Amino acid sequence: MGDTFALMGTLAEIAPASAVIVGAGYIGLEMADALTARGLAVTQAEQLPEVLPTVDPQLGALVHAELAARGVEVLTGTAVKSVSRAGPGAPGRLEVEAVTSAGEPVTRHADLVLVVAGVRPDTSLAVSAGASLGAKGAIAVDRGMGTGLPGVYAAGDCAVTYHRLLGEACLPLGTTARKQGRVAGENACGGSREFAGSLGTQVVKVFDQAAARTGLRDHEAAAAGFDPVTTGAEADDHKAYYPGSHRIRMRFTGDRATGRLLGVQLFGHKNAEIAKRVDIAATAIFHGMTVDQVSDLDLSYTPPLGSPWDAVQVGAQAWARHAAQP
Amino acid sequence: MGDTFALMGTLAEIAPASAVIVGAGYIGLEMADALTARGLAVTQAEQLPEVLPTVDPQLGALVHAELAARGVEVLTGTAVKSVSRAGPGAPGRLEVEAVTSAGEPVTRHADLVLVVAGVRPDTSLAVSAGASLGAKGAIAVDRGMGTGLPGVYAAGDCAVTYHRLLGEACLPLGTTARKQGRVAGENACGGSREFAGSLGTQVVKVFDQAAARTGLRDHEAAAAGFDPVTTGAEADDHKAYYPGSHRIRMRFTGDRATGRLLGVQLFGHKNAEIAKRVDIAATAIFHGMTVDQVSDLDLSYTPPLGSPWDAVQVGAQAWARHAAQP
Repeated sequence: MGDTFALMGTLAEIAPASAVIVGAGYIGLEMADALTARGLAVTQAEQLPEVLPTVDPQLGALVHAELAARGVEVLTGTAVKSVSRAGPGAPGRLEVEAVTSAGEPVTRHADLVLVVAGVRPDTSLAVSAGASLGAKGAIAVDRGMGTGLPGVYAAGDCAVTYHRLLGEACLPLGTTARKQGRVAGENACGGSREFAGSLGTQVVKVFDQAAARTGLRDHEAAAAGFDPVTTGAEADDHKAYYPGSHRIRMRFTGDRATGRLLGVQLFGHKNAEIAKRVDIAATAIFHGMTVDQVSDLDLSYTPPLGSPWDAVQVGAQAWARHAAQP
Repeated sequence: MGDTFALMGTLAEIAPASAVIVGAGYIGLEMADALTARGLAVTQAEQLPEVLPTVDPQLGALVHAELAARGVEVLTGTAVKSVSRAGPGAPGRLEVEAVTSAGEPVTRHADLVLVVAGVRPDTSLAVSAGASLGAKGAIAVDRGMGTGLPGVYAAGDCAVTYHRLLGEACLPLGTTARKQGRVAGENACGGSREFAGSLGTQVVKVFDQAAARTGLRDHEAAAAGFDPVTTGAEADDHKAYYPGSHRIRMRFTGDRATGRLLGVQLFGHKNAEIAKRVDIAATAIFHGMTVDQVSDLDLSYTPPLGSPWDAVQVGAQAWARHAAQP
């Protein structure tokens, strides 16, 4: 909240004409959207090869295209090295110096620079009380969100998250914080609830498009000991003969040996029900369904809002056909 | 298809200014939407007390209000008795005579009358081949869609549907037809797939609103031997501080003794992801989740597209609070 109020204050105070955003994860993308809407010329710098590196680059490239179509200058493979006050006559109050992955220097000027390049668990209070730390330095907790210290629970971005496919993880997400807080609160009051676990389900809107994921991507699944197969697929959000349909781009990851659904990534228009479609997949993964069984789900259909086989079932069937090939 | 081509031909040929639609189920409501969009003055007559009688009247009343707001004259509790050619000077080519549930006669004139008052399985071919009939006169089939006759399978509106909560049912829906057809086709080719079963999941768009359901309503659950509790709830489709949020009205039905989720009904704006939210519930019911466990699902969140507790989790929590009361 403090960061938001500071940013709002700066926008009011100096009326910046331009911004450089360092980082192209969820918050960075949302800031590019919001600052463009406020009329700022936005440059987005991401040190990795593609924006939104939490999804596969095939879908990241579609987010990249949406940013570019909305006038955002996107610099991927570009690591920001310094931000300093610009000299007189520069087209902006600040000077940003960066270097590309090829070693070329890049300089941009802007009135505002936002650094949104990751999060770190804030654990000092818990550590001073004697709590242990776990994955990525987050506070270690049991499934009941207990820290091991009598009567002390931890929940949210500061705490380790139990992931249903990975075990212990560090996954700072608002939904997870709410669920963990509810468990911690109930147990602090004498209950015995367990956090059921995260699947890393998440979604972001970028201008008129949305990107979402749940479960594991191919390399994450391989690292966790699965034998993953990942395929791309496309389907319409609803019957194309009914006006206003949108194409949904999908990536499905399943385990070759067991056929188990491990992860789904979706990209499409903000009105294409991307968010709740990834939630269907999240619910399927929660229950350990195979990719093939996704076709058994009785999902709703009407031509303006869906298809007899929903997009997630089309994606599942594409995966099953691909995985069946020798 | 034949009915559609005939209707399209009539619209082109006589350019009707008005229509009476007999029935306010899915097809009737879609026709009211479509004919109003074409500029016809529409009257909708439904003999039951509320439109869309496949959902609870609390939600049917919201569909009713949307129809009225769009200029459709809605006559509920009104049974159409006859349609005849209108006399000279009448404001329409046809005269429709009806009677209200209170016994009052009602007369309307219109250029077009559509009768959309239910479906009946078309079984004559199967019966002549020796097939047996089951629920509501549909063709009896096993879980592999076999009719019992060697090499003869039945699928779709003509056949009995296995319902995961009810057993044998007659539920003519496009999604079910596709799934049954896939099972029948695979088995006809020597496979051994079983139809996993329907939950009666369905959705309809009426102008700018959508209504959806999955599973059982209170009286259906009671008839099936459950001890149902049903509660209403409301939630926003996404954070209300982000522009463009819509209110979702919900009805949750669960079993008192076991806490099992039995049915969910949703109503809200067509862009409120109603369809795919009911699909989250359908996936939960498919797996026999309790209402309380719905809060454990890791669903996606971003302020423009959702809330940290999704609407379906808000509805589940409202049910759990209600059911916990003495």
